[in-house]
Amino acid sequence: MQPGFSVETLELFFLGFCSVRSTMEHAQEPEASLEQTQRYCVERPIYNQELLQGWLHKRERTPQTLRQKIARSCRCSSKKAKSHLYSFLPILKWLPRYPVKEYLLGDIISGISTGVMQLPQGLAYALLAAVPPVFGLYSSFYPVFLYTFFGTSKHISIGTFAVISMMVGGVAVRQVPDEIISVGYNSTNVTDSLEYYHPTEAKRVQVAVTLAFLSGIIQLCLGLLRFGFVAIYLTEPLVRGFTTAAAVHVFTSQLKYLLGIKTNRYSGPLSVVYSIGAVLSKITTTNIASLIVGLICIVLLLIGKEINVRFKKKLPVPIPMEIIVVIIGTGVSAGMNLNESYRVDVVGNIPQGLRAPAVPEIQLIPEIFVDAIAIAIVGFSMAVSMAKIFALKHGYTIDGNQELIALGICNSVGSFFQSFSITCSMSRSLVQESTGGKTQIAGALSSVMVLLVIVAIGYLFEPLPQTVLAAIVMVNLKGMFKQFGDVVHFWRTSKIELAIWVVAFVASLFLGLDYGLLTAVAFAMITVIYRTQSPQYRILGQIPDTDIYCDVEEYEEVKEYPGMKIFQANASLYFANSESYTSALKKKTGVDPCAILAARRKAQKRHAREIKAANELRKQAVLKLVNSLTNDVEASVKHEIANDELPVNGKFASVDTSVQDVSPDEHEHFVEPKTNIHSLILDFTPVNFVDSVGAKTLKSIIKEYKEVGICVCIASCSGPVMNELTRLNFFDNTVTRELLFHSIHDAVLACQVKDGSASQTD
Amino acid sequence: MQPGFSVETLELFFLGFCSVRSTMEHAQEPEASLEQTQRYCVERPIYNQELLQGWLHKRERTPQTLRQKIARSCRCSSKKAKSHLYSFLPILKWLPRYPVKEYLLGDIISGISTGVMQLPQGLAYALLAAVPPVFGLYSSFYPVFLYTFFGTSKHISIGTFAVISMMVGGVAVRQVPDEIISVGYNSTNVTDSLEYYHPTEAKRVQVAVTLAFLSGIIQLCLGLLRFGFVAIYLTEPLVRGFTTAAAVHVFTSQLKYLLGIKTNRYSGPLSVVYSIGAVLSKITTTNIASLIVGLICIVLLLIGKEINVRFKKKLPVPIPMEIIVVIIGTGVSAGMNLNESYRVDVVGNIPQGLRAPAVPEIQLIPEIFVDAIAIAIVGFSMAVSMAKIFALKHGYTIDGNQELIALGICNSVGSFFQSFSITCSMSRSLVQESTGGKTQIAGALSSVMVLLVIVAIGYLFEPLPQTVLAAIVMVNLKGMFKQFGDVVHFWRTSKIELAIWVVAFVASLFLGLDYGLLTAVAFAMITVIYRTQSPQYRILGQIPDTDIYCDVEEYEEVKEYPGMKIFQANASLYFANSESYTSALKKKTGVDPCAILAARRKAQKRHAREIKAANELRKQAVLKLVNSLTNDVEASVKHEIANDELPVNGKFASVDTSVQDVSPDEHEHFVEPKTNIHSLILDFTPVNFVDSVGAKTLKSIIKEYKEVGICVCIASCSGPVMNELTRLNFFDNTVTRELLFHSIHDAVLACQVKDGSASQTD
Repeated sequence: MQPGFSVETLELFFLGFCSVRSTMEHAQEPEASLEQTQRYCVERPIYNQELLQGWLHKRERTPQTLRQKIARSCRCSSKKAKSHLYSFLPILKWLPRYPVKEYLLGDIISGISTGVMQLPQGLAYALLAAVPPVFGLYSSFYPVFLYTFFGTSKHISIGTFAVISMMVGGVAVRQVPDEIISVGYNSTNVTDSLEYYHPTEAKRVQVAVTLAFLSGIIQLCLGLLRFGFVAIYLTEPLVRGFTTAAAVHVFTSQLKYLLGIKTNRYSGPLSVVYSIGAVLSKITTTNIASLIVGLICIVLLLIGKEINVRFKKKLPVPIPMEIIVVIIGTGVSAGMNLNESYRVDVVGNIPQGLRAPAVPEIQLIPEIFVDAIAIAIVGFSMAVSMAKIFALKHGYTIDGNQELIALGICNSVGSFFQSFSITCSMSRSLVQESTGGKTQIAGALSSVMVLLVIVAIGYLFEPLPQTVLAAIVMVNLKGMFKQFGDVVHFWRTSKIELAIWVVAFVASLFLGLDYGLLTAVAFAMITVIYRTQSPQYRILGQIPDTDIYCDVEEYEEVKEYPGMKIFQANASLYFANSESYTSALKKKTGVDPCAILAARRKAQKRHAREIKAANELRKQAVLKLVNSLTNDVEASVKHEIANDELPVNGKFASVDTSVQDVSPDEHEHFVEPKTNIHSLILDFTPVNFVDSVGAKTLKSIIKEYKEVGICVCIASCSGPVMNELTRLNFFDNTVTRELLFHSIHDAVLACQVKDGSASQTD
Repeated sequence: MQPGFSVETLELFFLGFCSVRSTMEHAQEPEASLEQTQRYCVERPIYNQELLQGWLHKRERTPQTLRQKIARSCRCSSKKAKSHLYSFLPILKWLPRYPVKEYLLGDIISGISTGVMQLPQGLAYALLAAVPPVFGLYSSFYPVFLYTFFGTSKHISIGTFAVISMMVGGVAVRQVPDEIISVGYNSTNVTDSLEYYHPTEAKRVQVAVTLAFLSGIIQLCLGLLRFGFVAIYLTEPLVRGFTTAAAVHVFTSQLKYLLGIKTNRYSGPLSVVYSIGAVLSKITTTNIASLIVGLICIVLLLIGKEINVRFKKKLPVPIPMEIIVVIIGTGVSAGMNLNESYRVDVVGNIPQGLRAPAVPEIQLIPEIFVDAIAIAIVGFSMAVSMAKIFALKHGYTIDGNQELIALGICNSVGSFFQSFSITCSMSRSLVQESTGGKTQIAGALSSVMVLLVIVAIGYLFEPLPQTVLAAIVMVNLKGMFKQFGDVVHFWRTSKIELAIWVVAFVASLFLGLDYGLLTAVAFAMITVIYRTQSPQYRILGQIPDTDIYCDVEEYEEVKEYPGMKIFQANASLYFANSESYTSALKKKTGVDPCAILAARRKAQKRHAREIKAANELRKQAVLKLVNSLTNDVEASVKHEIANDELPVNGKFASVDTSVQDVSPDEHEHFVEPKTNIHSLILDFTPVNFVDSVGAKTLKSIIKEYKEVGICVCIASCSGPVMNELTRLNFFDNTVTRELLFHSIHDAVLACQVKDGSASQTD
């Protein structure tokens, strides 16, 4: 793979400046010519930007005029229309080419496997979303079916998802707290079709449905505006911290169902604490029957999971343990009449058939807007990250914006049919893919299965104990709880990412999922600022006989040139770090022009005082002379001279100006304590942008150091940064492009040449 | 200044790879030897990081143990104690060395000039702060006097300032609206000393005083925690936009005083709109006498300002026009009895003497906490930016953290004596410096002048019309209104900074100064994210015969190497841009491994189908043969062979694996459409940090391209980034340090060598 030069070639080192000798030796050894082609040889003039730009010719670009651009984008062709239609309705593209023989069997198996998971998960996550279970079934049908037409991912399973359901439930409970069951309820608001639910439940359904509508509309808008990139802000540690916190939320909210305790459900900041507190305070009222049924289910589910993982390759399809548990649970509950005999809470009323569409409650929108944004973005980022994994694995591409549009349509259209917010579920997607699902057909089949249950046999699940659903939810959290291991991982790899994880977790846990997410995103942004704002400052030195410059503190071989300091900060120069850049420069190089100037000023003052004292003496002497030679013309002239040299008392400023007239010899004297540094090279390699504050800082650095006789050069300034500097009026008479060098080595050579010629002229 | 090589040397170009020839020619020309020293010559092996790090020796650093660090920082010496004392009480350092003869006269003149400005500004800005005028005088005395002891800047004039006063007024009005004059007022809360004020005013004084206390404590804490850097987030365009909006706020709030209209004062979002609306709706009630007096004052003040600017050099001290206007205004008002004859509002009750100290209202703190933070930070950043300008001009240094402590003490201690929040005023500071002020003595003298007025002749200003104060405030806004010109300036220099200015202005104007400032700071942060998140992506090419690589689209001379693409993004690689990095890489280089793989897969499938069809044919032929040669051993063997070659129907995955066994010749065929690119070099020069998402992206890029036979190299990866990549487990068997090259040129040479050897072996 690598070029074939060996370590021995390293020994053939040449001085960069005496290539004459070395290459002449090479010429005498013909066998070295092959090696020669594998070496790095450069000989060229020393370039500063002035020189380089004078030599190069700007390529003439004919930028498209705005009119041309508009004309181009507005041009309509049948091909363009077709491609737009295809991208909006991907089903038109893949369905006609569907290879029935090859794909159908896999899709059917996969669809059934996924469908039997949709069913129990739909019922269980409805509990999380604080709505009656049947709405979980609706949410597992309409959106899933719609996704078949609009989605671009062939393998993800759309439907109810724990985190999103939890967020929906949080909002529903916040808007309709348990306390206002009878007081704050306005019966006229509820549509007739919800009449056989408890008023609180009916109202919560409305909140959940409106939330789905709003988040769908937000996703749709983001997709149409091509804003799919918003998901990039949800970086991996953030999402993992957030979902871990969500898992804790979900777990605590399910505790009461598992234990069969009746407590209020909490939402908002510290709701986890309140939930646990409420459960603990009522722990004595635990329903033992519920707990036993729940624990048995948990054990069964865990065993099922373990078998599915361990015998993955041997099983044709994974064991659908969830539906088995639901069926057994329903059977046992009905047979033993758990509800009445043991007061075990059951799912209860599951109405048969679908509901007529209804318009969501528009007047709720202002109160749930922020939550809808959070749900829309979390939902999208979950779906798209899963879709990307499968797309990469199976070698097709997905369109992030079309995914947003698809999810938006699923949510918003689904909301008219009383479904709540959905996204892709990780566990189901993995099953759908691993059981041989090839296209969106599998998802459609799973939704049809749910439909059959809704219209035909839904009522059979009425005796299902809630504790079974709680067990299903809890066992599904296993993967998320494993994410606690991230702390160790991030501790080793990156402290900043650990901080993002911890902030996302803690904020989401205690502030609630919505504000927690916002806080975490803000924090992730701040870490980026922090990285650019507190760079590492380093003094560079040369690796002898090369053009390579490294941190002097890192390697033994690295040497500094006498009289030169090369300074590097690994960040751009802008308002938030320009001040620390200056102070680090002064500290690292050990040359502070302010201190030198102050010392010089002091020396000047002392000198001025000495002059003054000398003058006083001289004046007195002169006056004596004048007195002794009264009325002599010569004497008055001398007096005049003496007065001229006398500084005006009380106005010290004039001393400063007068000092500028002192002889060069005396001036040199003031410059002490003089440093032996003659050049300062600022490595601008890591600088990607400069703002006006940065440009001003740079200018003042150059001027300050110039005042104390140190030349500041800038090395490796990139093209865009140079354009920025030009626009910011950085270059003028004192700061020219001649101070900008193409590389550190160019700058070093130029400074050496200059210093050499300066010392020659001395 | 510059190295003396001429443009002609540029013509002496050599091929980088035949330095033997060129330098031999040089050896024949002895006169070229001088020129030689001014050229850039490098010859060395091609370095990748593996090689380089193998050769270099890490310098052994003995890091200080935590214990040593603690011991060191805890070590106490008299010198250390002295330096801490000096830094906390700078007066101890400068006062004993005060050169009385040289400095005192200047300080006295400057102190008086500043003092006569403190007086009218104190009265006027009290109006802005929504408190009775005398509290403006208190604020011009206590904090100013305290600053003498704690401040490090010798030239800034501490005291009332328009923007801060406006912010204080906003909070005071929000907490005590005009409407609740009689209703919401709880008389027991007000200290006795405030009893002769209107209840609303007394309550507002308490709010203002508590705000000063809280902002002072915040400043003190920030200073003690060495958090002086917080001011860096207030970048220049932000501050200018913010102060311009503040000027508009101040102007609208003073309109009613100028016109003599009685309206409520508004605060919070849209208060500017409400204020203007209120004034316009009552414009018919304008008090003509007030307006005339106000306009005359404005004209006088503007003339005075103009004279001061124009004859700056000729005037020994600036004309104190403000105090002149106040004196004339008071005289005219008293003489003509403006208050009673023309119903002109006057300053009214100015109690003589100082007040006993009182504890601020602690219970108000939670309601005004955010405002206090905003005031603390704005106040500090105003003071420190002004102090820095003077320090630079006069060659001394200021200590940002000590300035924070000083301001904190001024505000918090002052608040016990009923002063409101203060900072440095630009106009007064300029006067203090230009009239010859040398040290903090000048400020102390100005405060003593204010004290004299308070204890002796304050009551004389009671007939002063409020319109005169409004005129003073308005004329002082002139400089801030001039900042509207920034829009043009920033339009030319930087669109991003223009955006910051506009956002700061609009947000501060309409959301109020506190939330406006927060919004603007958040926006300024986002611009930094934006800069790192949407970099410029470029393909680089070589300037022939050099090691310099530039944007191929920029210069005519730049050439690309055949078979290689050099890609650069001028930003770090992290979560927010890694996705766009990948897509830009694919787009810019024109090589999309996914598309190639998909095409290959298709070709494989087609090929597999062809094999299958051929096999079917062959099988039929064989079977025919078998049928014709029944019970022949040879035939059954042939059948076996035919079955072996037959792909298993319905399980397509096996075809994929079987294809891997096809001959290299056939495999080559699938790789089409093959690109002629063999190497991709990612220039990492601008990359300053990498996070886990970035590292994963990079790894998947390398692997994806490897699958389609393209080698990805990374050039110019800096030391810190390499350490980060190592920590993130970036390097493994496939991704080694040998893919990292020291520079682009190293990578190019290595890729050429490899391609050359690869084509030789073909």
